[in-house]
Amino acid sequence: MHQLRSNLRNEKSNKILLIVLDGVGGLPFPKLTELEAARTPNLDKLAKKSETGSHVPVLNGLTPGSGSAHLSLFGYDPLSFDIGRGILEALGLDVEVTPYHLSIRGNFSTVKEEKKKLIVTDRRAGRLSNQENKRIVKILKQKISKIDNIKVDFISGIEHRFVCTLKFSKKLNSSECLVADTDPENEGMEPIYPKNLNKNSLKVSKIINKLTILIRNSLSKEKKANYALLRGYSVYPLIPTFNQLYKMKTASIVTYPMYKGISKLVGMTSLNVPGSSISHQLETLKKGYKKYDFFYFHIKKTDSYGEDGNFKKKTGVIEDFDKILPDIIKLNFDVLAITGDHSTPARMKSHSWHPVPVLINSKNSFYGTSKRFTEKECQKGTLGLFEGKYLMNFLLAHAEMLSKFGA
Amino acid sequence: MHQLRSNLRNEKSNKILLIVLDGVGGLPFPKLTELEAARTPNLDKLAKKSETGSHVPVLNGLTPGSGSAHLSLFGYDPLSFDIGRGILEALGLDVEVTPYHLSIRGNFSTVKEEKKKLIVTDRRAGRLSNQENKRIVKILKQKISKIDNIKVDFISGIEHRFVCTLKFSKKLNSSECLVADTDPENEGMEPIYPKNLNKNSLKVSKIINKLTILIRNSLSKEKKANYALLRGYSVYPLIPTFNQLYKMKTASIVTYPMYKGISKLVGMTSLNVPGSSISHQLETLKKGYKKYDFFYFHIKKTDSYGEDGNFKKKTGVIEDFDKILPDIIKLNFDVLAITGDHSTPARMKSHSWHPVPVLINSKNSFYGTSKRFTEKECQKGTLGLFEGKYLMNFLLAHAEMLSKFGA
Repeated sequence: MHQLRSNLRNEKSNKILLIVLDGVGGLPFPKLTELEAARTPNLDKLAKKSETGSHVPVLNGLTPGSGSAHLSLFGYDPLSFDIGRGILEALGLDVEVTPYHLSIRGNFSTVKEEKKKLIVTDRRAGRLSNQENKRIVKILKQKISKIDNIKVDFISGIEHRFVCTLKFSKKLNSSECLVADTDPENEGMEPIYPKNLNKNSLKVSKIINKLTILIRNSLSKEKKANYALLRGYSVYPLIPTFNQLYKMKTASIVTYPMYKGISKLVGMTSLNVPGSSISHQLETLKKGYKKYDFFYFHIKKTDSYGEDGNFKKKTGVIEDFDKILPDIIKLNFDVLAITGDHSTPARMKSHSWHPVPVLINSKNSFYGTSKRFTEKECQKGTLGLFEGKYLMNFLLAHAEMLSKFGA
Repeated sequence: MHQLRSNLRNEKSNKILLIVLDGVGGLPFPKLTELEAARTPNLDKLAKKSETGSHVPVLNGLTPGSGSAHLSLFGYDPLSFDIGRGILEALGLDVEVTPYHLSIRGNFSTVKEEKKKLIVTDRRAGRLSNQENKRIVKILKQKISKIDNIKVDFISGIEHRFVCTLKFSKKLNSSECLVADTDPENEGMEPIYPKNLNKNSLKVSKIINKLTILIRNSLSKEKKANYALLRGYSVYPLIPTFNQLYKMKTASIVTYPMYKGISKLVGMTSLNVPGSSISHQLETLKKGYKKYDFFYFHIKKTDSYGEDGNFKKKTGVIEDFDKILPDIIKLNFDVLAITGDHSTPARMKSHSWHPVPVLINSKNSFYGTSKRFTEKECQKGTLGLFEGKYLMNFLLAHAEMLSKFGA
């Protein structure tokens, strides 16, 4: 599909804005979903004039991670491009990574020793402060700089999160990094041994085990952050850039490292946002408007509150977005699309596989099918229920940026 | 799918009529679509008793040409069978083509010389009369019969259209014909040089350039048709016939050359229609009824008026068709299907990617979901939103011509 779409790309250049309300899809809880419960007069008005539908992020019944769900929204087949959490975090933190690097996502955590066994008592070390995080990372940087001639580095993230990179003397392929995550996913359990998941990954497995032991030894005197759980071991993926695929200058307007990471991975310019609110993002959008053709505008909090099971606060974020929508509409994009990367129903407190509403507003929209931007109303639209990877086809079509296929 | 479907084809023989209202799908303009605005009491009545749905002609977001959209309706994967405009026009004009022939679609056009450059002033030479077209083609036939031992022929089409065939001494493959169209698509511009689009097509590129120069020299004294723009260079495609795929005797009832071309390409018998109206086509249908199992009945004008942006006239063609529908129903086909090949919304004045309504009437229909044959009403039907290439599966199923799959 990549080749076909690139071949059809014509010379036109129109402005497209893709707004992703992370995890916006919900379930009735008990009667209404988050989108149904929210008071959204501006979204309602826009929905009536827009083409609507729903997307299945990856495949029927599969619950996606944020990375794969986003790849899908950007028009990549998420089943062909598997991207690890480590690389996304690393890119998001502006860490320099190359094909020689293995990137690992780490969580500082608390363990206790019990009958010569380690037991995880807090997987997030009480969500330590960013300052504390920096202090711990400094210790690790001093104590662990090499393992078997492999250069090791540590980079602070938010709260309990950090990234560790290992620089090898040769390029790694992804099969060499298939090693078990050490996070047991539950407290009161032992960390998992980072065993190799195939023959090729034995070497990396041994190094990660050494790394785990070195980290434990370096932090054993800490009260909270006395251990680190590791996961998402990943190499730099080979992925065509957004510009290669679509011939567009693209910018991302995001506030969370991981989403910055994924946008940079596909070659977007990540614009500086002067604060963490949607208003700050809008400011950045206005500033960058002239310079780029395609904007990816990511709102995180809908997902966070969904994960917390906080129906009311998730609804609140949707309402906050609605208040700012008129200012976005005023910018007069040729194509304005609103959707989520996946559903995060407050009722489930987690990502889910349920379809996500989609709205596309352009002069070529088939409008008049949906009264609101909700799961049920969007399902009535003419975009139908489609796999997320086709969203970019629709956006390019609405922007008149694809030529006719075939004679 | 071809093989699977052929394997399941049983011994039954039932009569199927597929009516294609070209480009029938529309957009609200401003409130109703063409199908919604049309007064269609007979279609409405039929829709209530039929199974309905919508088809995506080629792929989500891709706007198809007529050729690829039709291949899809006929059950071929349009992404696997790429058929050029030249061959479709040639077949439609009853020109004999073989695997040794390269077929080219030409437009007589007007150019002027400005500072030693040619500028296209009218891409259609004022839509010259068929008589004028014949006079010009006669000149070309006399003056250009060979280029480098390759036999050249010219055949008149309608108005400014013609076909040129080049007969090579060996079979050509499609990559040898990947050469740039010379039509700049806009007036006030220079014709495009027919450059080779890959290494294999250099030879054909040079010949087409010579052809362009020879045509220009032969016509330089003409006032209107003093040039020709060339496109759709195509070889004879290898494509299984309708009879091979479905074991049916098939006939097409069409009035436009291109559609005659595509129906012949898939092995249909193109029946003679004594005039250009839908009534004339009905007459042909009645006459041929006994002799064939499957009829492809093509109505062109919905698309033409859509392309012109003439909402009212497009609506009028739909109403004209509605008036004749009771006579078609009386013929009592086992399966009667009505759809379009793609959408041509008057609002867009062009083909589009939007889904197209489908209606299938047979004794096996799941009816009762749709009140009319419109985009919105058909979307409620049990056929759902499906890729056009699956239409033939549904028609064969309704005709009880496929055996059970699997044990």
